[in-house]
Amino acid sequence: MKLLLINPNTSAPMTAAIAKGAQAVASSNTEIIATQPSFGPLSIEGHYDEAFAAAGVAEQVKLAASWGPDAVVLACFGDPGLEAAREATSAPVLGIAEAAFHAASMLATGFSVVTTMTRTCIIAERLVQRYGFEHQCRGVHGTDIAVLDLEDGGEEIIGQIEHAAREALSRDRSGAIVLGCAGMTTLCHTLTQRLGVPVIDGVAVAVKFAEALSALGLGTSKHGDYATPLPKVYTGWAAPLGWPKAR
Amino acid sequence: MKLLLINPNTSAPMTAAIAKGAQAVASSNTEIIATQPSFGPLSIEGHYDEAFAAAGVAEQVKLAASWGPDAVVLACFGDPGLEAAREATSAPVLGIAEAAFHAASMLATGFSVVTTMTRTCIIAERLVQRYGFEHQCRGVHGTDIAVLDLEDGGEEIIGQIEHAAREALSRDRSGAIVLGCAGMTTLCHTLTQRLGVPVIDGVAVAVKFAEALSALGLGTSKHGDYATPLPKVYTGWAAPLGWPKAR
Amino acid sequence: MKLLLINPNTSAPMTAAIAKGAQAVASSNTEIIATQPSFGPLSIEGHYDEAFAAAGVAEQVKLAASWGPDAVVLACFGDPGLEAAREATSAPVLGIAEAAFHAASMLATGFSVVTTMTRTCIIAERLVQRYGFEHQCRGVHGTDIAVLDLEDGGEEIIGQIEHAAREALSRDRSGAIVLGCAGMTTLCHTLTQRLGVPVIDGVAVAVKFAEALSALGLGTSKHGDYATPLPKVYTGWAAPLGWPKAR
Amino acid sequence: MKLLLINPNTSAPMTAAIAKGAQAVASSNTEIIATQPSFGPLSIEGHYDEAFAAAGVAEQVKLAASWGPDAVVLACFGDPGLEAAREATSAPVLGIAEAAFHAASMLATGFSVVTTMTRTCIIAERLVQRYGFEHQCRGVHGTDIAVLDLEDGGEEIIGQIEHAAREALSRDRSGAIVLGCAGMTTLCHTLTQRLGVPVIDGVAVAVKFAEALSALGLGTSKHGDYATPLPKVYTGWAAPLGWPKAR
Amino acid sequence: MKLLLINPNTSAPMTAAIAKGAQAVASSNTEIIATQPSFGPLSIEGHYDEAFAAAGVAEQVKLAASWGPDAVVLACFGDPGLEAAREATSAPVLGIAEAAFHAASMLATGFSVVTTMTRTCIIAERLVQRYGFEHQCRGVHGTDIAVLDLEDGGEEIIGQIEHAAREALSRDRSGAIVLGCAGMTTLCHTLTQRLGVPVIDGVAVAVKFAEALSALGLGTSKHGDYATPLPKVYTGWAAPLGWPKAR
Amino acid sequence: MKLLLINPNTSAPMTAAIAKGAQAVASSNTEIIATQPSFGPLSIEGHYDEAFAAAGVAEQVKLAASWGPDAVVLACFGDPGLEAAREATSAPVLGIAEAAFHAASMLATGFSVVTTMTRTCIIAERLVQRYGFEHQCRGVHGTDIAVLDLEDGGEEIIGQIEHAAREALSRDRSGAIVLGCAGMTTLCHTLTQRLGVPVIDGVAVAVKFAEALSALGLGTSKHGDYATPLPKVYTGWAAPLGWPKAR
Repeated sequence: MKLLLINPNTSAPMTAAIAKGAQAVASSNTEIIATQPSFGPLSIEGHYDEAFAAAGVAEQVKLAASWGPDAVVLACFGDPGLEAAREATSAPVLGIAEAAFHAASMLATGFSVVTTMTRTCIIAERLVQRYGFEHQCRGVHGTDIAVLDLEDGGEEIIGQIEHAAREALSRDRSGAIVLGCAGMTTLCHTLTQRLGVPVIDGVAVAVKFAEALSALGLGTSKHGDYATPLPKVYTGWAAPLGWPKAR
Repeated sequence: MKLLLINPNTSAPMTAAIAKGAQAVASSNTEIIATQPSFGPLSIEGHYDEAFAAAGVAEQVKLAASWGPDAVVLACFGDPGLEAAREATSAPVLGIAEAAFHAASMLATGFSVVTTMTRTCIIAERLVQRYGFEHQCRGVHGTDIAVLDLEDGGEEIIGQIEHAAREALSRDRSGAIVLGCAGMTTLCHTLTQRLGVPVIDGVAVAVKFAEALSALGLGTSKHGDYATPLPKVYTGWAAPLGWPKAR
Repeated sequence: MKLLLINPNTSAPMTAAIAKGAQAVASSNTEIIATQPSFGPLSIEGHYDEAFAAAGVAEQVKLAASWGPDAVVLACFGDPGLEAAREATSAPVLGIAEAAFHAASMLATGFSVVTTMTRTCIIAERLVQRYGFEHQCRGVHGTDIAVLDLEDGGEEIIGQIEHAAREALSRDRSGAIVLGCAGMTTLCHTLTQRLGVPVIDGVAVAVKFAEALSALGLGTSKHGDYATPLPKVYTGWAAPLGWPKAR
Repeated sequence: MKLLLINPNTSAPMTAAIAKGAQAVASSNTEIIATQPSFGPLSIEGHYDEAFAAAGVAEQVKLAASWGPDAVVLACFGDPGLEAAREATSAPVLGIAEAAFHAASMLATGFSVVTTMTRTCIIAERLVQRYGFEHQCRGVHGTDIAVLDLEDGGEEIIGQIEHAAREALSRDRSGAIVLGCAGMTTLCHTLTQRLGVPVIDGVAVAVKFAEALSALGLGTSKHGDYATPLPKVYTGWAAPLGWPKAR
Repeated sequence: MKLLLINPNTSAPMTAAIAKGAQAVASSNTEIIATQPSFGPLSIEGHYDEAFAAAGVAEQVKLAASWGPDAVVLACFGDPGLEAAREATSAPVLGIAEAAFHAASMLATGFSVVTTMTRTCIIAERLVQRYGFEHQCRGVHGTDIAVLDLEDGGEEIIGQIEHAAREALSRDRSGAIVLGCAGMTTLCHTLTQRLGVPVIDGVAVAVKFAEALSALGLGTSKHGDYATPLPKVYTGWAAPLGWPKAR
Repeated sequence: MKLLLINPNTSAPMTAAIAKGAQAVASSNTEIIATQPSFGPLSIEGHYDEAFAAAGVAEQVKLAASWGPDAVVLACFGDPGLEAAREATSAPVLGIAEAAFHAASMLATGFSVVTTMTRTCIIAERLVQRYGFEHQCRGVHGTDIAVLDLEDGGEEIIGQIEHAAREALSRDRSGAIVLGCAGMTTLCHTLTQRLGVPVIDGVAVAVKFAEALSALGLGTSKHGDYATPLPKVYTGWAAPLGWPKAR
């Protein structure tokens, strides 16, 4: 199967790093096609950045319609453009926050999220509310590490995240940790060993859940709310991205 | 005061119509500056359209930073880009769905929304959930009238909406009707007279509430979740829209 | 327009102070008619006090039917008698807690309430629940300042409230402060300057929102739950307050 | 024990009827002392009526402080003045809506309320929300029978209520019926026989639960939110009802 | 009346102790028939223990069908097997957690639970959620006292629980304490005297509420969700417990 | 990997059928070990049946500890014994209702459940509430087909379920159907073809999600609420199932 992995920001090194992590956990017959928007912010650390990233996700899913991915994964913890992507394909589409929340709630009665900038906690908290995980998610904790600083992933960074995770496990009475940024993929193994509880990397579980759904022939429902976008004129730079009449 | 009124779609006639409606209810010392994104869909009838519109809203609020609006109103019932806009200005920002829900809940114990395409009901329903109006909003009802067909607003269109509103009042046991599309602004007066209950046009109440907040010197909090976007490199067509370092 | 401003307690100095604050923010063509019940507690600091105050609000709205206010504002943070008042008039009716919650949720993702006696927190918390602001209101904090002690409003009082507000902003991760008592109106300006975040005085926003609704011709729905009270015999001191048959 | 049974409206025949029903189910060593406010509406069919009734309940509990009831029951389905009453005594206080909801949720997974005027449904629905019975209460249904018409309780009235109850059981998939008015006490036996499901009269269960709590020495907590009212000046007709300093 | 009191664990001394406590509060014409499952854990301190206890409760209710209890009380704070028991009898069935939550919410705006092992808090928290007491229950606190260590109930044990209760009252701003284990029955009197707030023993209130419902002729609804189990083949040790065809 | 598939009822033919369905979707390197309790009901159609089935699930997970499954799936739509099973193993454990709800919410904004006996709807509805899918699950619909009648799966049975599913899609405005019984596994393919929307068989998705979690090295958290059961004496037939001291 062909899995479209979209990094919603425009950092090519992060796209490569996430793709590498995804390929490492993918089944042997899964081909990861990683991409990123043709425009927008280098990292996503707030609602303003996210607005552009969501349009970028829509762009990439639309462009991929030419070759037809079997599944789509959005590798940013705010799940930007998730609903738009679901309209634009009949393949299953998974955001990494969503996937991580689902996985965590299968493994523990409560989990805590450890993320980057404190200002992005509100984004995760609203996803928790919208998806229905308010009884399972016991806390979302910022570390105020910038997204792009995660790339080197030195001991100092890991230590900070480990510390925040330990605090969260204790104060929130949680049983699992969800990593709140795609850029934390590379830290998952180390943190699992140190913390002794399930540490959930949304990229990895999104890839595996997408494989699972695809293997069962399950895709986004085209009946009702996620029906294909209506044909419509688009203008400006987005002109080529409007949905055509015949399909 | 200068009120930036953003029509999130790219239909210039709709922008003009909404601006006219807004000016009609605005105070004499309020100047309405109406605008629309430089790109994107002619109408917003689903999540895919909305992803582009939200980026378009972010673009317009960023561009307006040069002259500094005293308040911002987003004239599409899905409130696309609301959070992004709030990060990008210290003026008060109101979406018309949000404003209409607030107003309706001050006038009746329960209200019903009558909107255009049934497929967009889910967007309104999620706003209801996110904003906390689940006990007040007793139903969201699609009429499957296309947004752009509202512009002529002939008797047939009005009749369809009136019928849907009457059904909603009765079945939902509601006391007020919220018009679920900025394009319905022009129908508000007629529907009010026919239905005999408060009929709420989000554009009008958003303008008045924005004036109210501005008059009191109240604006978007820059403390915490809506702090100004972090300075960051933006790429592609969005390159000029990244937040600069010095501010 | 004529705006009936009801102070639900029987402290004439407080009625005068609130009226003065209201007039200061009202539009030039708004006439503030301030009043208070003919009976009841000098201040409202619990459910028992509130029961009498709510009846007092109903009395005052009934008496005002003779001249027909264009809008009604209830200037006590527990919004006592709000529903009764809405039945008794077709003008818009706003409670100051309600108005403040609405305003705050337009300006920040989360807000905190700073109020007087800790024992009244439960009243505000239940309004938060009933109105649907549980995701936005992140804390209600008592200062155990008596309502009538607010009147002098010296530095000690302001300092106590400022301290409680700072604590709340930090612990609740809030972006705005709601003043939890009509008697705090006079402190709003000073606190805004000191705290650097939106500080919301319910009296002010209720007046402006009431003007906004009234300007749009919007009033309390008489269809359904807020229909005019049924004609009925009232006894005892309340005999003149029963709703008459012909209307 | 001495049980203060307050009929919150001013209909002496209804007070007598409710007292008779209460005595019929009370234990042999329970003395029912029935009373009603010295003022207010003959029946309670809306928020306006209720505002006066709540003050009337507060008045009666305050007056009873002279002899000290062992328990208090408020015999109106809107539970008017419940919180005020709890502040004003250390005895247990039960509203009949509250008691009926508690009982019904012990007997069935879901119940339906059948009440009088449709316009009062909103009052019951908000109690359901506030008390936390939203998953158990599957519907509140008005019959538009006036409260005072219940007194004769002829076959026509019973038939109407029976019909509404059958509809509710079927449409709501409920297992029990809650009678939504103190005036329905006399119909409980007949309806139980006809419907074949638990039919719950709030007056009866409130009396028995009050006896139960009292027997265990349990009363209203005076620690925190229901602490005795603060001493305070009351004015007008309510002057004697202010809480005195020494206690 | 005959009240079947089931201790869901298999500790005979605890069954005796609970029965003694129940008899002490029961009415003179109530006969307490105490029993325990024929199999399962000596104490219930987790979900695994509880699964067996629930089956044990079902067993005991089924066996009691031969003599027909007038009411059933389940004396373990997790209310194991409550729904099964309700299907298996038309008498009222009360769990002690449920009964305690109901009672506490009649006496205070908020209560706290003090229980044994911290690992069982999740069980109480989920009951709180399922029953609808999320606004009233402000905290569930473990003491990590083993259930069987409660039996001696020396000063050290009492002191630990008193300490946890005081902490809870203060931090949770609660007005009442719910004892989170049937084995705490014997401590209720002492704790009430020391804490000065209502201390609620679920066994006692369950017995009194069961008497109350039974006196009113109210029992578990056999209409719908709690209808008698369908006749069915049971195998293995449970073979005699299948519901027979004729009934 | 070795996947323990537990059919919680005691119908050997159903165990075989479910195992066959599970093997059909499992990866080539997944070995399905199917089992059923040594006691209990032939089918699960109510809470009473479920109490025994949950103990049966606990028994089977405990017995499997000797060989150590890599994942556990509980193949009954009420997820009986799910929490007990999670305590008793460090492998991931999935119930089929839970798995189906998770999958459905990834594919559609709303889904409907079609199940067997109407009396079991309450069980699914409570799982929906507990797991947090109240916004996604738009209806649970009984067909009153007995569980054991599903086995033949003739056209009449399929037709009934198809009809109920079509009704649900339309009335609930849903985009996907969840099959509410493990015995419906064999109908999934046919229904998918006929309905044209995602039809979700919990057994299949539970197997695939279990494989996904296991492949990532993720298992049930042993930190906190799902920690291994405390060592304890078990009596009666359950004596061998108590958790031993040394482990």
